[in-house]
Amino acid sequence: MRLLLPMPGNAAMAGAMGNVGGFEVGSLETRRFPDGEIYVRILSDVAGRDVDIVCTLADPDPQFLGLAFVAATARELGARSVNLVAPYLAYMRQDIRFQPGEAVSSHHFAKLLSGFFDRLVTIDPHLHRIADLGEIFTMPTRVLQAAPLLGDWVKANVANPLLIGPDSESAQWVSVVGERAGAPHAVLEKQRRGDRDVEISVPDLSRWQGRTVVLVDDMISSGHTMLVAARQLAALGFGKPICLTVHALFADDAYARLLAVSDAVVSTDAVPHVSNGVSVAALLAGASAIA
Amino acid sequence: MRLLLPMPGNAAMAGAMGNVGGFEVGSLETRRFPDGEIYVRILSDVAGRDVDIVCTLADPDPQFLGLAFVAATARELGARSVNLVAPYLAYMRQDIRFQPGEAVSSHHFAKLLSGFFDRLVTIDPHLHRIADLGEIFTMPTRVLQAAPLLGDWVKANVANPLLIGPDSESAQWVSVVGERAGAPHAVLEKQRRGDRDVEISVPDLSRWQGRTVVLVDDMISSGHTMLVAARQLAALGFGKPICLTVHALFADDAYARLLAVSDAVVSTDAVPHVSNGVSVAALLAGASAIA
Repeated sequence: MRLLLPMPGNAAMAGAMGNVGGFEVGSLETRRFPDGEIYVRILSDVAGRDVDIVCTLADPDPQFLGLAFVAATARELGARSVNLVAPYLAYMRQDIRFQPGEAVSSHHFAKLLSGFFDRLVTIDPHLHRIADLGEIFTMPTRVLQAAPLLGDWVKANVANPLLIGPDSESAQWVSVVGERAGAPHAVLEKQRRGDRDVEISVPDLSRWQGRTVVLVDDMISSGHTMLVAARQLAALGFGKPICLTVHALFADDAYARLLAVSDAVVSTDAVPHVSNGVSVAALLAGASAIA
Repeated sequence: MRLLLPMPGNAAMAGAMGNVGGFEVGSLETRRFPDGEIYVRILSDVAGRDVDIVCTLADPDPQFLGLAFVAATARELGARSVNLVAPYLAYMRQDIRFQPGEAVSSHHFAKLLSGFFDRLVTIDPHLHRIADLGEIFTMPTRVLQAAPLLGDWVKANVANPLLIGPDSESAQWVSVVGERAGAPHAVLEKQRRGDRDVEISVPDLSRWQGRTVVLVDDMISSGHTMLVAARQLAALGFGKPICLTVHALFADDAYARLLAVSDAVVSTDAVPHVSNGVSVAALLAGASAIA
């Protein structure tokens, strides 16, 4: 039987996946030595097992070595396969050298992970110029889509909604959410000038006046895109929007600032956060079951 | 000409090495995105150069990915060799599986680093059962000894010293410090019961009453070993000791607690710290010069 091993902070997700999929949930002992080095110990028997290490990769830097040590140890101890279930996958944004000398971190990170795992399962990775994870990962990858789950949530919770995506890149993805919700959708035009500086253009939305705006994006990090969009939509006579996202990264005070201009802020549990309202556990468990 | 590239926090060491060895010191741009991911850019021309990336590895987990990205980028940009100068080398302690399921992190960390660099230079790695770094690294390694520098410091700064090492493992190393200082040495017997729980036995030191005790160890992390030793030596009629170390890790409030029972706490600059009083820059520059 497949064994799920949750890294620290991922026990709730592994437990939910285990419940849905009928998998055993194993356990690790982890702690930090006084000097900051990590100690990891696999407490479950992994020999001959297919092992899914569950580790969402928000804030990846402090987590990486511990994750690598667990994976390498599971392999040494005879696991039949060692797989990574990363509901959120980090470092997919820097996929090209914009300036001379820049690290193309998406490629380096993919190569590093590929050295430790046999297979990757993730949800809606934040890709730009990479069309398929197979371009940068040398292990098999499976990409799951949370858009249908978000659409179901909108249908169940929002009367008369209008789905709005932040930029043209999100158009196809937002259309899936809208179709599933049985609601119209539109996309804004976004120009990014820096990590925290974005400009938004709003198309003509007059025919949808009176609908409840649901701003939807694959991830919220600084939250500036949604903040700017919420303010511009309010100026156009729409009420406070609902903000809906897959990956609740919420840097610094982004969540509080977004709450202040929104009717609600809801995310999936791909990244644990107080805003979680949509579970991706069954989606992930399904991918593990057919591995 | 060899190029030194300092990772964040290592500019002073790279500058000192450059001054002593006549090497060019290059520069990086590094920052964190709002979500915690690291951005790195090499601002110096590395094509065709031998590049020494200077990165002391105290608190290694948050630093590792950035270091790996810089190394991989230097290689992509045509560096002739990409080398790691790590005055302090992390993760050398867990070199065996004490309990079933434990990660043997020294092996995994060595393998990871070996995948990014052509050569490693470090100072006094904290080894137990590993006799030579070549047992776990698959790249050439050069281990430098700070003991002569510590001996020189004692000779120049302490009248009538008695060098004392914390355990029998340190005997040979402490004898080098003592010989260089022209002073006697002794070692204590240490039994470790946990990360922060040690018991110390003191041999008969009566013939050296009146000497100034210099407690010397390769690293100070929790500081408990030195704290316990300092108290026991005080109880035997010795005055407050001088504490001397290569690697100033000083977890939590270890430095303040040690200062309270010591006449002075002095370290090398292998790890930047307010206690730094002995420079290893020339030692490191010498190893780079003959690479």
